Amino acid sequence: MTRFIDWSTSVTDQLAEIVEDQLDDSDLEAAESSESTRIDVDEVHRALLGSWPAERQRARDIAADPAFWRDDSLSLAEHRDRVLAQVKLLAERGTPSLAFPKRFGGGENPGGNIAAFEEIFLADPSLQIKSGVQFGLFGAAIMHLGTEEHHERWLPGAMDVSVPGAFAMTEIGHGSDVSSIGTTATYDPETEEFVINTPFRAAWKEYLGNAGRDATAAVLFAQLITKGMNHGVHAFYIEIRDAEGNFLPGVGGEDDGVKGGLNGVDNGRLHFSDVRIPRTNLLNRYGDVAADGAYSSPIESPGRRFFVMLGTLVQGRVSLDGSAVVAQQAALAIAVTYGNQRRQFDNSGKGEETVLLDYGRHQQRLIPRLATVYAAAFSHDEFLREFDAVFSGAGDTPDRRADLETLAAALKPTTTWQGMDTLQVAREACGGAGFMADNRLTLLRHDLDVYTTFEGDNTVLLQLVGKRLLEDYAAKFKGADAREAARLFVTQAATKAFHEIGLARLGSIARDLGSSARSVGWLREPENQHALLAARVQDEIAEIGMALNRAAKAGRGEAAFNALQSRLIDASHAYGELIQWEAFTRKLEDFSPESETHRILTWLRDLFGLTLIERDLSWYLISGRLTTKRARLVTSYISRLISRLRPHAQSLVDAFGYTDAHLRAKIATGIEQERQTEAAAYYEELRASGNAPLDERVVYRQKRKAAKQAG
Amino acid sequence: MTRFIDWSTSVTDQLAEIVEDQLDDSDLEAAESSESTRIDVDEVHRALLGSWPAERQRARDIAADPAFWRDDSLSLAEHRDRVLAQVKLLAERGTPSLAFPKRFGGGENPGGNIAAFEEIFLADPSLQIKSGVQFGLFGAAIMHLGTEEHHERWLPGAMDVSVPGAFAMTEIGHGSDVSSIGTTATYDPETEEFVINTPFRAAWKEYLGNAGRDATAAVLFAQLITKGMNHGVHAFYIEIRDAEGNFLPGVGGEDDGVKGGLNGVDNGRLHFSDVRIPRTNLLNRYGDVAADGAYSSPIESPGRRFFVMLGTLVQGRVSLDGSAVVAQQAALAIAVTYGNQRRQFDNSGKGEETVLLDYGRHQQRLIPRLATVYAAAFSHDEFLREFDAVFSGAGDTPDRRADLETLAAALKPTTTWQGMDTLQVAREACGGAGFMADNRLTLLRHDLDVYTTFEGDNTVLLQLVGKRLLEDYAAKFKGADAREAARLFVTQAATKAFHEIGLARLGSIARDLGSSARSVGWLREPENQHALLAARVQDEIAEIGMALNRAAKAGRGEAAFNALQSRLIDASHAYGELIQWEAFTRKLEDFSPESETHRILTWLRDLFGLTLIERDLSWYLISGRLTTKRARLVTSYISRLISRLRPHAQSLVDAFGYTDAHLRAKIATGIEQERQTEAAAYYEELRASGNAPLDERVVYRQKRKAAKQAG
Repeated sequence: MTRFIDWSTSVTDQLAEIVEDQLDDSDLEAAESSESTRIDVDEVHRALLGSWPAERQRARDIAADPAFWRDDSLSLAEHRDRVLAQVKLLAERGTPSLAFPKRFGGGENPGGNIAAFEEIFLADPSLQIKSGVQFGLFGAAIMHLGTEEHHERWLPGAMDVSVPGAFAMTEIGHGSDVSSIGTTATYDPETEEFVINTPFRAAWKEYLGNAGRDATAAVLFAQLITKGMNHGVHAFYIEIRDAEGNFLPGVGGEDDGVKGGLNGVDNGRLHFSDVRIPRTNLLNRYGDVAADGAYSSPIESPGRRFFVMLGTLVQGRVSLDGSAVVAQQAALAIAVTYGNQRRQFDNSGKGEETVLLDYGRHQQRLIPRLATVYAAAFSHDEFLREFDAVFSGAGDTPDRRADLETLAAALKPTTTWQGMDTLQVAREACGGAGFMADNRLTLLRHDLDVYTTFEGDNTVLLQLVGKRLLEDYAAKFKGADAREAARLFVTQAATKAFHEIGLARLGSIARDLGSSARSVGWLREPENQHALLAARVQDEIAEIGMALNRAAKAGRGEAAFNALQSRLIDASHAYGELIQWEAFTRKLEDFSPESETHRILTWLRDLFGLTLIERDLSWYLISGRLTTKRARLVTSYISRLISRLRPHAQSLVDAFGYTDAHLRAKIATGIEQERQTEAAAYYEELRASGNAPLDERVVYRQKRKAAKQAG
Repeated sequence: MTRFIDWSTSVTDQLAEIVEDQLDDSDLEAAESSESTRIDVDEVHRALLGSWPAERQRARDIAADPAFWRDDSLSLAEHRDRVLAQVKLLAERGTPSLAFPKRFGGGENPGGNIAAFEEIFLADPSLQIKSGVQFGLFGAAIMHLGTEEHHERWLPGAMDVSVPGAFAMTEIGHGSDVSSIGTTATYDPETEEFVINTPFRAAWKEYLGNAGRDATAAVLFAQLITKGMNHGVHAFYIEIRDAEGNFLPGVGGEDDGVKGGLNGVDNGRLHFSDVRIPRTNLLNRYGDVAADGAYSSPIESPGRRFFVMLGTLVQGRVSLDGSAVVAQQAALAIAVTYGNQRRQFDNSGKGEETVLLDYGRHQQRLIPRLATVYAAAFSHDEFLREFDAVFSGAGDTPDRRADLETLAAALKPTTTWQGMDTLQVAREACGGAGFMADNRLTLLRHDLDVYTTFEGDNTVLLQLVGKRLLEDYAAKFKGADAREAARLFVTQAATKAFHEIGLARLGSIARDLGSSARSVGWLREPENQHALLAARVQDEIAEIGMALNRAAKAGRGEAAFNALQSRLIDASHAYGELIQWEAFTRKLEDFSPESETHRILTWLRDLFGLTLIERDLSWYLISGRLTTKRARLVTSYISRLISRLRPHAQSLVDAFGYTDAHLRAKIATGIEQERQTEAAAYYEELRASGNAPLDERVVYRQKRKAAKQAG
């Protein structure tokens, strides 16, 4: 674009100064200065590999082995066959056994097991999920909910896949609300058996991996009824098919058929009519029935018992968090590599087209998402260490279990949504090529889609987080003098109500209205980023808490909760992101503060934090947490950070450590660069030959110019 | 939640008042009052059907005919076979011929043709796109770029599908930048032939529908070279396969194989080595070559000529806009119907679970998107009328053509992104059921994905819009006294720079700081919504224009454009949404202002406008266009509108007029309601029988209570 408005400078100088700010004069310098800096790719790679590098690397070797790859050309039945065979092969290679007891040949290494499991995503997400059902749900339920005898009888078959198993929890009528499932297991003391029944259509078990075709057994969740009392949901081991694959008497089911993704997994429905199983098939760690029908449990409260039982299965959520990190890394490795090679439009008119990643919009699409996946990866590793501490027994306390569950409920939704977003943005950034199965992005996204729903619907999980945050908030005030509590609250949340008060309290914000507002130093301080991100959670929770309290007094608690549900979920989501930001910040300490790696990763962390703040900028403005001048700086500093990071985009994706065998995206193999080189050589040769045709456009322009000069 | 903070009311009264505002006391009243009102479903349905109701309804009948449905169980090859047969059947039914000349049995009804075409989406998007390639690209290129003789020779074969054809424009190396394609058509006066060549790998034609397998001919785009001059991209008719499906000599190609969606379409690549075609195969409406090789064209400027040629193909973008409306309507019809039947969690403790659409978050996910699709549908109909006016010849002026192209470039990206978003949100709102192919949402989304890329990448199109807006802006100041221009600009854009000035100018905004700020009346005024939405576009364009002007003076125009690219694209996107808002507002005039339909649709329009404003709320705050108090009102009034509209959600989707045969989503057929009724009846009967087991949770709570009272 050229000077189409030619007005006097004097009048507009003042305005222009502001606009220049947006234009970001320092971009070029920043880009230049950062050309000379480099991240230490190996060091960053090691940091990303996390706390179980050997297990993760071993699983990456498996994911890079063609025997485990998805073959896009297969029919539904062939894809299922292949995946079943792969699950068995995986068991032979030993990775899944990491989770199981040593006496069965396992590794008793819960963290390493999950780290390895996550990497299977890039072989084929169907393989990941089918093996997750077999080992992580069916096998893990036997291990965590069963006792010694159960382990002896059923773990070997689960571990070597001689017994493919389903995890029969969800029903058509009840997914998120597991405690309301309809399947019953009624104890018959006469025969010392449980009688399993599906009383109505909505109580059919549904969406069960392995159940559509392969499973010969299942861990079944049902309402345990004995002596006229319903003791709530318990797990039972039940055989469902014979060796020929026919349903056993009383068992029925249907195949779920084609799904939006994960079509290598045979999901299906099951129902039961008076199926009798021995009393000892109750997985009785948390609740048992004696021969005479007397119920006993180490946990008296039926509510707590239910949550403890489900809590043993938290590893599913842990592993989805990590899988969504893998998905994002792969997507960005593909899109950034291609964006660094693909050229389109000759903007300079010098015969060289512009590399996609040199376009402002392209950078803005991909580089903030690079920052996100670094935050997600580092927070996942902390999460995984916490999971390992609890599940290895080293740090297994009720409080840590509760915290782990909150962490899982906050992070799994956050990263799976990040994964869906990044895969789609990467797909669009690769244009038509992005749509081809050969370039992986679309099919990975199809498969990842349901990760936002299974192992706990994202929205429902975030609401659990919200309730926990509200409880913590309430606990803070418990027992405090009412007037004192109110005072505390006023200083904490009043910023939104009366932002003059807020501004007075938050001195440093209020004082920035002068020229110093143009400095980005304040935004770069991690304390300030943290204060802003934390305020977004705390103030919202405080305000929601107060509103609920008031509404409850007025007898409108339920309506109020519903009216505030959406805000509560958003605040919980912001909490998940805050955890990611904190983990990224802690991780920076592992790098030498003088190193270029530290400098560049700090930019990346800043970009992550500021991108979150920018998304909720109106909240910060309305609450008085940011002035309008500082809010504008957030946006312009984000632009500057993106420019600074642009030269490092390739190194930052190289540090993920994925090879062509993992990515398997043709456009990310250098093929685009080769084609461009070939085309350039052709035109070069043509020019040199003297046989190149004239370009009518050039001739036309010259003619017009000549006519103009003549006229 | 119950009163967990019990502080003295006196201290917190003031705060509570603000919070109550958020809680929105008026919700219940609003919901009650609107229970008694109803939209006239038939009247709204007619409004949505738009200007070609008969053609649209006829195509809906086709989409409801099982012969045209997708069969999810088919393999890739079978799916392609089925779709090819369906395209032929479609030609027999006559719908596609609407676009073609009457002397070939066509309807010369461009608007009706597109309306009908859009509805084919719900039969199978693959069928839509394969027929779009055959009739809307291959056939339309012959019609628009060829002349009489070409029509005689080739239109009948295109129309009856005896010649399946490809549209060979895009190359591996050049998609968005068509003018840089590498394929050459060099005229040989000796033989009076064009010699077609693919000089390098990047010049292979790519992603061409029909080219993977079925096409026997193609309209080929190549650089026309004659007498040593390259006259730019022109279209040629070329045969590529013989009757047995083998490539003709010199022609080669590859099948694109599996894609992220649209797998019933056989996309593929083509390349040419010294393939000779007669001189008369040049589609010569806008450029011709005489037997001696002399080039002639009715359009002197090669640049304009290129754009005129491409402009004849704008109907593709028009039809994608409308198809994305159909996609959204289907998604919302499915998700709202299911959300009105599906229940989960007994929140009241009274034994009845809550309907999903009664949850605040669920409403917030679906109801604003209902507002969006109404805006999209009404703006699409205006767009289609404008297209018809230009292409029927009734209003074919260069200015209207140019405006039509800008409209297409603004609306196609806006609606296709809305479609992607709505399909995903609907899918997640339906949980695991949403992931099943049986419920349509995922597979429709897979197919819609590439609608954001083909017929012009959304990002590239929005940049075209941005350039046009900048040109208009520049034109406004052209010839104006520089000082005057600057003054104009200051009053227009200064709001952001110095918002005190802005506030002074925008008196009504500045004056609202008192108690009247609590009134939503101001936000309800369409003039104010329009002023806000327009300001978002105008101010941004003005500021970007000024920055570019200044940067150009400093010799940094290109860098500046790149730095501002992302903002320009966002402003263009906001322009597309503004057009939708305006069309919705105009459409309201068709309804009697006293009618309940008018009242409810006005809420819906308000919700659309305010949702857009809320998304960019930080921009409005920073620019001084909204005060923080009014900004908060935007959010709370949105909540109120959602509550008011909730009782009408089902009527609003019923008005789309799609039947089970169109939606083909099991969960939207009433099956969920049946299952719930069955389950409820089972429990009712169990209770009545006296055989219901006791619930341990109830017993436990009673025990605890008793113990507490005793202690």
